[in-house]
Amino acid sequence: MSLSPPATTTAADDLGGGKIEAEVQDEAWVWAQIKAEARRDAESEPALASYLYSTILSHSSLARSLAFHLGNKLCSSTLLSTLLYDLFLNTVSADPRLRSATVADLRAARYRDPACISFSHCLLNYKGFLAIQAHRVAHKLWIQNRKPIALALHSRIADVFAVDIHPAARVGKGILLDHATGVVIGETAVVGNNVSILHHVTLGGTGKMGGDRHPKIGDGVLIGAGATILGNVKIGEGAKVGAGSVVLIDVPPRTTAVGNPARLVGGKEQPNLHEDVPGESMDHTSFISQWSDYII
Amino acid sequence: MSLSPPATTTAADDLGGGKIEAEVQDEAWVWAQIKAEARRDAESEPALASYLYSTILSHSSLARSLAFHLGNKLCSSTLLSTLLYDLFLNTVSADPRLRSATVADLRAARYRDPACISFSHCLLNYKGFLAIQAHRVAHKLWIQNRKPIALALHSRIADVFAVDIHPAARVGKGILLDHATGVVIGETAVVGNNVSILHHVTLGGTGKMGGDRHPKIGDGVLIGAGATILGNVKIGEGAKVGAGSVVLIDVPPRTTAVGNPARLVGGKEQPNLHEDVPGESMDHTSFISQWSDYII
Amino acid sequence: MSLSPPATTTAADDLGGGKIEAEVQDEAWVWAQIKAEARRDAESEPALASYLYSTILSHSSLARSLAFHLGNKLCSSTLLSTLLYDLFLNTVSADPRLRSATVADLRAARYRDPACISFSHCLLNYKGFLAIQAHRVAHKLWIQNRKPIALALHSRIADVFAVDIHPAARVGKGILLDHATGVVIGETAVVGNNVSILHHVTLGGTGKMGGDRHPKIGDGVLIGAGATILGNVKIGEGAKVGAGSVVLIDVPPRTTAVGNPARLVGGKEQPNLHEDVPGESMDHTSFISQWSDYII
Amino acid sequence: MSLSPPATTTAADDLGGGKIEAEVQDEAWVWAQIKAEARRDAESEPALASYLYSTILSHSSLARSLAFHLGNKLCSSTLLSTLLYDLFLNTVSADPRLRSATVADLRAARYRDPACISFSHCLLNYKGFLAIQAHRVAHKLWIQNRKPIALALHSRIADVFAVDIHPAARVGKGILLDHATGVVIGETAVVGNNVSILHHVTLGGTGKMGGDRHPKIGDGVLIGAGATILGNVKIGEGAKVGAGSVVLIDVPPRTTAVGNPARLVGGKEQPNLHEDVPGESMDHTSFISQWSDYII
Amino acid sequence: MSLSPPATTTAADDLGGGKIEAEVQDEAWVWAQIKAEARRDAESEPALASYLYSTILSHSSLARSLAFHLGNKLCSSTLLSTLLYDLFLNTVSADPRLRSATVADLRAARYRDPACISFSHCLLNYKGFLAIQAHRVAHKLWIQNRKPIALALHSRIADVFAVDIHPAARVGKGILLDHATGVVIGETAVVGNNVSILHHVTLGGTGKMGGDRHPKIGDGVLIGAGATILGNVKIGEGAKVGAGSVVLIDVPPRTTAVGNPARLVGGKEQPNLHEDVPGESMDHTSFISQWSDYII
Amino acid sequence: MSLSPPATTTAADDLGGGKIEAEVQDEAWVWAQIKAEARRDAESEPALASYLYSTILSHSSLARSLAFHLGNKLCSSTLLSTLLYDLFLNTVSADPRLRSATVADLRAARYRDPACISFSHCLLNYKGFLAIQAHRVAHKLWIQNRKPIALALHSRIADVFAVDIHPAARVGKGILLDHATGVVIGETAVVGNNVSILHHVTLGGTGKMGGDRHPKIGDGVLIGAGATILGNVKIGEGAKVGAGSVVLIDVPPRTTAVGNPARLVGGKEQPNLHEDVPGESMDHTSFISQWSDYII
Repeated sequence: MSLSPPATTTAADDLGGGKIEAEVQDEAWVWAQIKAEARRDAESEPALASYLYSTILSHSSLARSLAFHLGNKLCSSTLLSTLLYDLFLNTVSADPRLRSATVADLRAARYRDPACISFSHCLLNYKGFLAIQAHRVAHKLWIQNRKPIALALHSRIADVFAVDIHPAARVGKGILLDHATGVVIGETAVVGNNVSILHHVTLGGTGKMGGDRHPKIGDGVLIGAGATILGNVKIGEGAKVGAGSVVLIDVPPRTTAVGNPARLVGGKEQPNLHEDVPGESMDHTSFISQWSDYII
Repeated sequence: MSLSPPATTTAADDLGGGKIEAEVQDEAWVWAQIKAEARRDAESEPALASYLYSTILSHSSLARSLAFHLGNKLCSSTLLSTLLYDLFLNTVSADPRLRSATVADLRAARYRDPACISFSHCLLNYKGFLAIQAHRVAHKLWIQNRKPIALALHSRIADVFAVDIHPAARVGKGILLDHATGVVIGETAVVGNNVSILHHVTLGGTGKMGGDRHPKIGDGVLIGAGATILGNVKIGEGAKVGAGSVVLIDVPPRTTAVGNPARLVGGKEQPNLHEDVPGESMDHTSFISQWSDYII
Repeated sequence: MSLSPPATTTAADDLGGGKIEAEVQDEAWVWAQIKAEARRDAESEPALASYLYSTILSHSSLARSLAFHLGNKLCSSTLLSTLLYDLFLNTVSADPRLRSATVADLRAARYRDPACISFSHCLLNYKGFLAIQAHRVAHKLWIQNRKPIALALHSRIADVFAVDIHPAARVGKGILLDHATGVVIGETAVVGNNVSILHHVTLGGTGKMGGDRHPKIGDGVLIGAGATILGNVKIGEGAKVGAGSVVLIDVPPRTTAVGNPARLVGGKEQPNLHEDVPGESMDHTSFISQWSDYII
Repeated sequence: MSLSPPATTTAADDLGGGKIEAEVQDEAWVWAQIKAEARRDAESEPALASYLYSTILSHSSLARSLAFHLGNKLCSSTLLSTLLYDLFLNTVSADPRLRSATVADLRAARYRDPACISFSHCLLNYKGFLAIQAHRVAHKLWIQNRKPIALALHSRIADVFAVDIHPAARVGKGILLDHATGVVIGETAVVGNNVSILHHVTLGGTGKMGGDRHPKIGDGVLIGAGATILGNVKIGEGAKVGAGSVVLIDVPPRTTAVGNPARLVGGKEQPNLHEDVPGESMDHTSFISQWSDYII
Repeated sequence: MSLSPPATTTAADDLGGGKIEAEVQDEAWVWAQIKAEARRDAESEPALASYLYSTILSHSSLARSLAFHLGNKLCSSTLLSTLLYDLFLNTVSADPRLRSATVADLRAARYRDPACISFSHCLLNYKGFLAIQAHRVAHKLWIQNRKPIALALHSRIADVFAVDIHPAARVGKGILLDHATGVVIGETAVVGNNVSILHHVTLGGTGKMGGDRHPKIGDGVLIGAGATILGNVKIGEGAKVGAGSVVLIDVPPRTTAVGNPARLVGGKEQPNLHEDVPGESMDHTSFISQWSDYII
Repeated sequence: MSLSPPATTTAADDLGGGKIEAEVQDEAWVWAQIKAEARRDAESEPALASYLYSTILSHSSLARSLAFHLGNKLCSSTLLSTLLYDLFLNTVSADPRLRSATVADLRAARYRDPACISFSHCLLNYKGFLAIQAHRVAHKLWIQNRKPIALALHSRIADVFAVDIHPAARVGKGILLDHATGVVIGETAVVGNNVSILHHVTLGGTGKMGGDRHPKIGDGVLIGAGATILGNVKIGEGAKVGAGSVVLIDVPPRTTAVGNPARLVGGKEQPNLHEDVPGESMDHTSFISQWSDYII
């Protein structure tokens, strides 16, 4: 199965109008894939067809499908699905950047996670994907100074997906929150584009003082499972943070920090530099030989 | 906005009757703040007004509001909200200490967490706060030897908030469970007053033998994100456990343990002592320079 | 209270027919215990009786009780409880091995976790137990090539229990997922029999390449809270992985790996060997003196 | 099975204190019967036990049981069960006359309707009984000038039970609404004590003018299925209105009106008088020979 | 569209085995029609596809589809859909006569009601059809002496569909309850085969004495909207009762009774006899000229 | 309180553009009244404020409020509120005539029913009003040839409100269905403008033949409770049908038909003519002296 639309659209990442048009085409292409996948699955699995029709096949756009799915996932007895559906639909419809980010996130999961077997698999089932889409709406409400409703949404995301992203946090596009359970991203954190973050990762603060106190994650960064990054530190573009690491100081671009406390692979003076973009290549463990020190 | 009631009540922390009266006043003051906040938010955000009226503004007391909110959050198709509401309301109404602890926890979040913008924000949205309030009811049922219902409540808290506090665990007041997802507190654990515990923290046991086998956390302790403390060990008053640390031995009062396995900052012979109460000051990272060993 | 049926049945673990007959008797015995426990609890706690009748006492078999409980726990507004109930009941009824594994898991919790006070306590309240039972059904659907419905189930388990087991992962019997929140088990992982896994444990992959890329856990292994094991590595039979450890290389049978990065206790040349089966003995901390290096 | 408590209580219908005490004893006796019936049914029918425990056996009083049952029956996604439960419980707890009327209505169904096999049968299943109990609460709210909530309750009763009693209508005690579907009782209607009203009965108004415009039904009246009584007319004590009759003029005490338009049996000059209390004797058809004019 | 299976099956209404086989084929044929209709509708109306898959297209038999649909229609917060689904499925699966009656009722609606556009239309939407199917299960439970659960079901049917059929009432097959709202059928009533009953019809009793006190309706009878038949009277085979009639005496076969009180068309001495089967021909009004006495 | 907007708008009922503009102003005026009423009620009754905010005060238009309220009232576990909300909102937004009819119906209830104390009372609580609004959407879907979804909606309206209006029936504006329970309106019925219909009224068909077979009700007609009108008969403009009447022949304009079978008041040759519009004046009983033939 092809993973991308015809070449003309991917090449169009240039200027204003052309870019927007390309993104609209891109969204249409991904949405067509999703419907085709769902149609195929509904045919092969009648027990799931009702679910696939209500979440995907009955909708006229990706935005409507997502608004419906999130509204039903995040609702509670005191925050009704109709209210949330309306909120999601209105916010997403009004902002093409939100829709473009959704498409980029779908691609991120589909390309980077070998367990992701289709776009619809991600759309329906990835709690990390869903949490980020809902966060983007909460963030938009936050910057419109609608804080109480942004925080109510934040709370529902944290309850339902066990993913806790403060609505003020700024998150780029092309994000993969793999597995996602337990991710915590604080109020003043910034996450760049094409970043991959595994479950149980913390981008946390430093204490009870307000102000700018959370990590800044550069483009293309990969953060391994259970890593804890605290304070207003910079994780440079293309850097990699190993699973279970505790990072309290800046990590330079294209280096790898591992351990608790984290050390740079290769040493702090001349750390090893890698060439690829780990947030996209998802290489979790190639630093094994340098770091794990026992051989059996 | 003022964060505390007039001085007369906070000064009243002395003896029996005076103390109770002061606490009643304190509860009334906090409840008045919460209603004022909710009223303001309902006015500025009509989409949220229904939620704010049902959870806060329609109730005549903090206890009723909390019982309603927890009943609706923790109910399931086999444990109805009406049953849980009744259980919470009856238990909390009968015990002023539960209500006083609730107020202390609200203050803890409001003072210590810069992301907490109001008391109502905590009451409605903080899963750690809500998990602890529900735990206190479960604990009360447990010590009344109503174990099956205490465990059913325990299970609902663990499902809904991903916070797993055994109903037998004894927890003080003025507790902040920040972010809270993944916190595990075992059966024989004891947590003192004014403790702050970040997400993913484990106060775990040591094996399959019963008996007293979980940590004892002193007053004013701060435990960083992802720290794992195992066994019947003592974390002394005012001590600090760094994020991601694994602690298997006692930590002396006012010292800081970091790392996996944890080491005392300053060394085990003459560990550094700090003066403040980290559970309240929430200083997560001032030990950076002593611990993280690379500089870029 | 006795924890096992009369000797004749436990002795019957021999060959084909005899073994199956013994397992059927075993299931009947455990189910009888569960009903007796529930009846006793319903009598002592009328507020819980409705819950106990609907989940246990109204059912004619353990399989029906479990299908009902899981159907009601995992349902959502778009995946109805009746659909899930049917799916669970039909799958479990058709496969005696699933029922036998359920019984073994109930025993595992009851024997190994001192906080587990009865079989019914585990059946109703242990999210790890429930997540594994639901996973086994998802796994069966997966190997029948019903992938979309297996993944939908996977998603519900991850949302409701915060336990993320890929439906392709192969999991043995007699498994204890203690506390369970945050456990992640990847697509090509294999978990043997009589394994105990604490919360926040990751059996993760190594990157975006597909293929066999997740850990293989031998029989009788114990994995401590928050341990992260990455890549297609082997954790040998009866090995132990300490809490918070990060393991990227094979761990030999009956050894203990601790730390981040993990080291073998006793050194990689001549690691200490233990005789017991830690997955069953649940000894989390007896390696303290060798590992934690400060004494206060 | 005995249908009444020991003689001392029924004889006590005399004065002030004695009467109240007798009614309290009466309520206790009926509640004890209901619990005994429910216990017996729960034992013989495990599939229903959960329902019986949640609605009856888990409650400490008839008022709590009824408030729970009505709260769950009448709730909707915008009027939560917890809110309604609270409203019912507080109103009924505060007014012993409501509780005494409930007991009288239970007796009315049990004595007069041969299809009513137990008090619990009526409490759980009779929509007419439940509609009246909810109406009494709505009426109380109405006379406290809490009209909007009284009307919201009115609307829920009309939706759920298809019984439409305006909250301003005054209804006595010992009322049987048999089958009940379609009953309509207007704003200024008054219904005496010990009245039996079959389904589809209308006590309607006369037009768009306000004021006193609905029927007044005397004590002991029996109104047959589908009868329509319009306007501020008086149905005298002990009168009987035949099924399907349309009544627009007063009916004298102890007479029978039948037909469309209704005529008095025996003629308007010297109508037949009966001695019994038809609202209690429930004789629907003894006037057949005088009225139906064909014999086959 | 054809309304019946190939001739061989309808001709098979003869003896034992042949008859049963024919009925099984008949059920299969109707079920195939229903699936084809639902598939066509799902294709033309995506917004309804989810509903059609969950209620019809995901099921392997008519019995499962009906059990699912009734379980979800009749459930409440205290009587869960899973419990009802199980009850319906087990009862219907065990008794081929119930399934055969369902098929006959589907045919009755499809043939007699010009507003019924398909079998699936009836299966999904006809409250009279659904009420009767649920009644048959309640009746079966009643004659197995499982009265409390039969009455609980009775109550749910009366609440949800506003159709009140006592579980003891015996009802034939090929029944059409058209519109159905407000139908009341008492405890000792008997309804023959191929009967059509309009809405608001009462088959009521005569008072507070128990015993055989409700109407007996012969085969092929048609009872018009709002007719009230009271007492143990016989409505002879093929008779017709006009809309709004009140009947208190036997009506002979193939005659028509109209009015309040009812009179036989043609007079009681020599009533007109009709040849057709009005329960099937559904001729409501051909007696107009003889009865209505004004011409405009 | 004023019942109408300033004179300019009511005078505008003239031609094309002016009329539409007037109706838009009219809708705005009524919506402003509704919000003011709801705001006043929310202030005086905090227990109801959540309900009032979710149904009225959080919405930006009458159409949104109504779509939300109907979506939540009519949803079921297989037809989700979000789906219905979308369907209602899209249909009503696209057709100003639907919105204008809604306003006319609100006025009809407010003016003609003395028990209707406010517009919001009708909007929230009148099942007849709500049933008609939902019917108009079903009717629009029907004439767009979306029959299956129109019939599904029809079924939900019949279940929830016990009001059964076939989606093909054509219904005018300014309709009051007072009390509404049990109303049945058949497929080819036509109801004019400014008609008032009481509960239990049937506009029914004549048999199993299709085609035009239901009543045609002229403008300004009043039909009393329980009246049954059968067949393709004409009820002339401004006519009145008495409660409980059975009508099988045309009724001339401005006459009154009463009884079973119905007779014209004044006789068929020279029936009495009234001058007012009974559908608006709601005079149910002024014909008493001429019809009821006994005086007491």
